Amino acid sequence: MTGASSKERHAPAEISVEDIARAVGGTVVGDAATRIRGIASLEDAGDGMISFYADRRYEECLSGTKASALLVREKTGLFAGPQVVVSNPQLAYARVSGLFASPVPRYGEGRDRAVVHESCRIGRDVSIYPFVYIGKDAVIGDGTILFPGTFVGDRVRIGAGTVIYPNVTILQDCRIGDHVVIHAGTVIGSDGFGFVRDGDELVKIPHLGRVRIDDHVEIGAGNCIDRAALGETWIKAGVKTDNLVHLAHNVVVGEGTLVVALTGISGSVRIGRRVVIGGQVGISDHVEIGDGVMIGSQSGIAKSLSPGEVVSGSPSMPHRLWLKTSGLIKRLPGFNDRLRRIEKKIQDIEKRLDRAGRE
Amino acid sequence: MTGASSKERHAPAEISVEDIARAVGGTVVGDAATRIRGIASLEDAGDGMISFYADRRYEECLSGTKASALLVREKTGLFAGPQVVVSNPQLAYARVSGLFASPVPRYGEGRDRAVVHESCRIGRDVSIYPFVYIGKDAVIGDGTILFPGTFVGDRVRIGAGTVIYPNVTILQDCRIGDHVVIHAGTVIGSDGFGFVRDGDELVKIPHLGRVRIDDHVEIGAGNCIDRAALGETWIKAGVKTDNLVHLAHNVVVGEGTLVVALTGISGSVRIGRRVVIGGQVGISDHVEIGDGVMIGSQSGIAKSLSPGEVVSGSPSMPHRLWLKTSGLIKRLPGFNDRLRRIEKKIQDIEKRLDRAGRE
Amino acid sequence: MTGASSKERHAPAEISVEDIARAVGGTVVGDAATRIRGIASLEDAGDGMISFYADRRYEECLSGTKASALLVREKTGLFAGPQVVVSNPQLAYARVSGLFASPVPRYGEGRDRAVVHESCRIGRDVSIYPFVYIGKDAVIGDGTILFPGTFVGDRVRIGAGTVIYPNVTILQDCRIGDHVVIHAGTVIGSDGFGFVRDGDELVKIPHLGRVRIDDHVEIGAGNCIDRAALGETWIKAGVKTDNLVHLAHNVVVGEGTLVVALTGISGSVRIGRRVVIGGQVGISDHVEIGDGVMIGSQSGIAKSLSPGEVVSGSPSMPHRLWLKTSGLIKRLPGFNDRLRRIEKKIQDIEKRLDRAGRE
Repeated sequence: MTGASSKERHAPAEISVEDIARAVGGTVVGDAATRIRGIASLEDAGDGMISFYADRRYEECLSGTKASALLVREKTGLFAGPQVVVSNPQLAYARVSGLFASPVPRYGEGRDRAVVHESCRIGRDVSIYPFVYIGKDAVIGDGTILFPGTFVGDRVRIGAGTVIYPNVTILQDCRIGDHVVIHAGTVIGSDGFGFVRDGDELVKIPHLGRVRIDDHVEIGAGNCIDRAALGETWIKAGVKTDNLVHLAHNVVVGEGTLVVALTGISGSVRIGRRVVIGGQVGISDHVEIGDGVMIGSQSGIAKSLSPGEVVSGSPSMPHRLWLKTSGLIKRLPGFNDRLRRIEKKIQDIEKRLDRAGRE
Repeated sequence: MTGASSKERHAPAEISVEDIARAVGGTVVGDAATRIRGIASLEDAGDGMISFYADRRYEECLSGTKASALLVREKTGLFAGPQVVVSNPQLAYARVSGLFASPVPRYGEGRDRAVVHESCRIGRDVSIYPFVYIGKDAVIGDGTILFPGTFVGDRVRIGAGTVIYPNVTILQDCRIGDHVVIHAGTVIGSDGFGFVRDGDELVKIPHLGRVRIDDHVEIGAGNCIDRAALGETWIKAGVKTDNLVHLAHNVVVGEGTLVVALTGISGSVRIGRRVVIGGQVGISDHVEIGDGVMIGSQSGIAKSLSPGEVVSGSPSMPHRLWLKTSGLIKRLPGFNDRLRRIEKKIQDIEKRLDRAGRE
Repeated sequence: MTGASSKERHAPAEISVEDIARAVGGTVVGDAATRIRGIASLEDAGDGMISFYADRRYEECLSGTKASALLVREKTGLFAGPQVVVSNPQLAYARVSGLFASPVPRYGEGRDRAVVHESCRIGRDVSIYPFVYIGKDAVIGDGTILFPGTFVGDRVRIGAGTVIYPNVTILQDCRIGDHVVIHAGTVIGSDGFGFVRDGDELVKIPHLGRVRIDDHVEIGAGNCIDRAALGETWIKAGVKTDNLVHLAHNVVVGEGTLVVALTGISGSVRIGRRVVIGGQVGISDHVEIGDGVMIGSQSGIAKSLSPGEVVSGSPSMPHRLWLKTSGLIKRLPGFNDRLRRIEKKIQDIEKRLDRAGRE
């Protein structure tokens, strides 16, 4: 009755070092025919596994590793087995991990435990796990996977090849693109936080807009992304968010931007392309953040930032200045002592001068 | 089998500018018979839509807007169509949005996919979506809507006209009032974080109390509100919380208070009426916050605050002082330079004085 | 059809003061035969209830309390009824609360509304509530309770006597120990936040590892704990986390450590035993935190900390220094004034000296 599809694709059992080199655009030094069946850190790798060495801090791990092959930036004499030389070992590691990753498990054809409104359009090879609810006139693209506990509201459109992990809520009218990943427990399309005081009453501003998430976006676990009051909250292609991120109503996040965990972005903030926002950052409403800006963790951003600015602190300042000031804050007790000593000395000097004047 | 109720109320297809003026207590300048079928920003509004103009920063949008009518504070010559003049355009915008908002969609009579314990008392016109679980002796008031994935624990009481969005957890014995909104993924009634060390062991303090949420409260998405150790964690009437807010055990929040996203309020904190708490604020346990206090975002509140105080910073200080000090922090490197220069000059002066004394 | 098990254990209706004294290792002063049927604060306690008095701030509540008995550190003359004298009244309170706490409610034998893959191994007396999904080859230990909306991925192993509250997501391959509590809405095993830029593309680092949670751990509501890229994210025995905590990939948290709400711990951070981490703290990646460290709320930890350090602030510093500096920050406007006065005086002095020199 229940059970994952038998059509499931599996991770390869074994591939050669040569195949790995081809996959990452590297060159082999040593025995290219060596068979590899997994990837692990230098410490954890066992026989038949490939590891990677990109950071000199881990040099001492090289002699003791049991890995059968290595991804390296340049050939090292400290490892006897075959080495794959690549310009960017971290990127190569990501790609090789991809070779050994299991595909996201699919659910079979049965939808007897899900509730799918009859007016929906569901693509081919869509996995709808038990306890999924799909409302009226929703559209789900080919190959998309909806895990248990997913709620898909009326008229929601989800693209192809997208994965929605368990207990995700996508409310009415939202648009999710192709090849999007939404991690567990995330909420898309909750009402924005907008109230107007009218005497003793707080009048709610109804949120008539929606959330639009473009292709290749990945949203972390436990995020809350509010719908627009009017128009769209818009997460553009390739954006990646970490866990427990809050994106308020009408926020726009540009292509390829990264947002680290526990960051809150207030209403109507516009963020450019390829911005990097650290963890626990707060951004005030209506602020504009230019392309390529970098914001240090725990910063508070109350004013707009020009493209390429690098800032830290709350309130934020240029990162270089913050490095100086944050060091000096610890010296404030010393400053206080110095001020007191100086004031005392000036009194003494003034007395000496007064005495000298009188003499 | 499945499907939303046919009794669903719909948003009006079209209303006249005159009707809008009546709804918001405004006066019409221009053609009061103009038909309106929606509301949008000046930029997005098309033919047949009303927009609003309250902030001079948007004056340049007035000439280009395609809106058919406008909500304004005072008649503007920059817009040719009918205008509704109101004293508070933002409030009017909220009320007009309400006219065009679709009602929360209801689920039909069938409860075949939900689990409702036979000992429950369920009111009239209650919508219980699939995959809702309602425990023993729970009480649900008339017209309340429970979306999929909602868990309602034993003996929970929920009032009338309340909306519980998907994947919300309300644990045993909690009380939810009338016309409350709880957004998706929120947890009400988790155990408070209380442990007592006994040698190597951390002994859990059992939480025997509950959470009480009064009428007209709106709780954002992804909130966690812990039950009291003994007695009640109490969210009073009209409180509104944003997303990802943490309210610890035995917290009391007064009427009409606003709490912005990612704020954490520790155990036994008592907050007054009409307080405004910014985003990412932390409040230490047992602190008392007086009525009407305003707390800037990212503040850290370690001490009680008197009614009407306006504070910012971590540790917090009066907001005006914080504005000064936060500007001066950036000047710490300059302070350091000035101190060094002063110390050098004093040395020079002392030498000159010593020389003069010897002469 | 549905309903909690009739085998349910109930909290005792009434016990004697003598039994309570025995349970907490205390001695009775007064009538040891007095029957007690609950515990409450001094203010809320009614007839037949025991309360506790450990903090002089509550002395004034003693005269008015209606409690029938008291847990005290030393006998007080301000209360007429029987008193149980114990060395640690807070610990005694926790233990007595445990006597009156209702057990976590169990669900009967029927699993008709849950989906349990036939390849699973389910222990004895396991409660599987409706709308639970358990994937292939999962293992659930004796007496464990899975509340509605719980997702248990393929090959997950959960120990004995563990409670998983509603709407929790535990993804594939994770390991949960015995007597663990996971509060509602928490996500275990989401992918870590790892991407490598390759020109315009952000290449995802697949996360092939898992999360391991050892015995007697309690995880708060709305937590997100990411799986390791390779190897394990490891929460060791007796760790307790508050609500909305983020633990990134490959984090290791040592035995008996406490993490307060809204704290974010970045990738590969290693935390020692019996550490206390306040609320809204951020810890940068790869940092090591020694045993017994204490970190004040809202701190930012960018560098490793030695065992026993007590720190606060962002960036962090020794807590005693932070107490000084955070007080001095408020005096920065005064510092600025003093610097200006000093500079003026030095100018005056130099002029006097120049004049004196010329004379």
